[in-house]
Amino acid sequence: MSLSEYFPVWGKLSESERQTLEHSATLRTTPKGTVLHNGSADCVGLFVIRSGQLRAYILSEEGKQITIYRLFERDICLFSASCMISSIQFEIIIEAEKDSELWVIPVEVYQKLLSDSVVISNYTNQIMATRFSEVMWLMDQVMFKSFDSRLAEFLIDESGIEGSVTLKITHERIANHMGTAREVVTRMLKYFQSEGMVALTRGGIEITNRKKLMGLVK
Amino acid sequence: MSLSEYFPVWGKLSESERQTLEHSATLRTTPKGTVLHNGSADCVGLFVIRSGQLRAYILSEEGKQITIYRLFERDICLFSASCMISSIQFEIIIEAEKDSELWVIPVEVYQKLLSDSVVISNYTNQIMATRFSEVMWLMDQVMFKSFDSRLAEFLIDESGIEGSVTLKITHERIANHMGTAREVVTRMLKYFQSEGMVALTRGGIEITNRKKLMGLVK
Repeated sequence: MSLSEYFPVWGKLSESERQTLEHSATLRTTPKGTVLHNGSADCVGLFVIRSGQLRAYILSEEGKQITIYRLFERDICLFSASCMISSIQFEIIIEAEKDSELWVIPVEVYQKLLSDSVVISNYTNQIMATRFSEVMWLMDQVMFKSFDSRLAEFLIDESGIEGSVTLKITHERIANHMGTAREVVTRMLKYFQSEGMVALTRGGIEITNRKKLMGLVK
Repeated sequence: MSLSEYFPVWGKLSESERQTLEHSATLRTTPKGTVLHNGSADCVGLFVIRSGQLRAYILSEEGKQITIYRLFERDICLFSASCMISSIQFEIIIEAEKDSELWVIPVEVYQKLLSDSVVISNYTNQIMATRFSEVMWLMDQVMFKSFDSRLAEFLIDESGIEGSVTLKITHERIANHMGTAREVVTRMLKYFQSEGMVALTRGGIEITNRKKLMGLVK
């Protein structure tokens, strides 16, 4: 599979634009846990995800995290090239959540295409609007939803991503996704267990009553 | 003052693009309190703010609000024309926070320019990135900052916007900006008063020790 299959606007690009993208993109293999982009400290380029899973999160001065969004196969990561767009004034960290393969398009190459091609520029607008929508969804969740509802939805989403009712994830890791403390997660999971919705095992969580858990999602 | 003075990329537009914008834009005067855009219920067009102040906020099912950002003279409001960009999948409400004057550029006019002009498209990208940055700032605040710090910063910002140490604003209104309950605001303001940082008056708040209040801002 070549880059063209992963780039939705490929058919609208000129022959020379396609060649520029194909010749400049490099395929990178990255193990789970790798930090691929760290705020304004780097500007590595656009990632086009061929396989695997990335996580974008913000970090407080005290080390608290919250996951902003996830990226999957065929998604494009714009903010690893955030220096391209001067009005982007925030710091996010992108890490490989699973072993991943991604094409890296160099910043200067994409920036040139962005300033010359209305197709690329409008496509970039759509990518940014998609991420913006995910952040607005999260804002709605953290401001207006109770923690039991958010945690229930997180577990159901994770189960969908992994394709399994058994989740191998620590309470610490869940806390880092949700922007809370481990103790808060553990307390709520124990309550879910007492209600028969999950079973807590060593290093994992099994969803035992999906329907009841779904009932908590507002 | 004509529209051209408020449109930063005017100099880079073609003569015909300028004429299209000038001929299609209508100047609208709107009193304080008017709801100018209500989520996906309308798609009224781009606003270019000539004078006044707008507020963008989200609303929960229970009627809770939180201010996402504010727009001032020379700002451009993109999300009142959010139907232009299909990937924008969130609902915000825009209201006039003061008596305001704005040019309205019809959706179909701007959309045509967006799909034809790389200058307009890149400019739109910059506008979206600016709003995105404001929302990310807010996310950082609500997730990682304590309420006393957020309220202190809000009061100092308000004082800057109004150019006065006396703020005519109700506790209810502050709660709607900050996404919390009125009682929470009142309790914290009373604490600020007991520490000599503010004086609470009927229908207003006076900042009496700005330096001490600033000390709370993390």
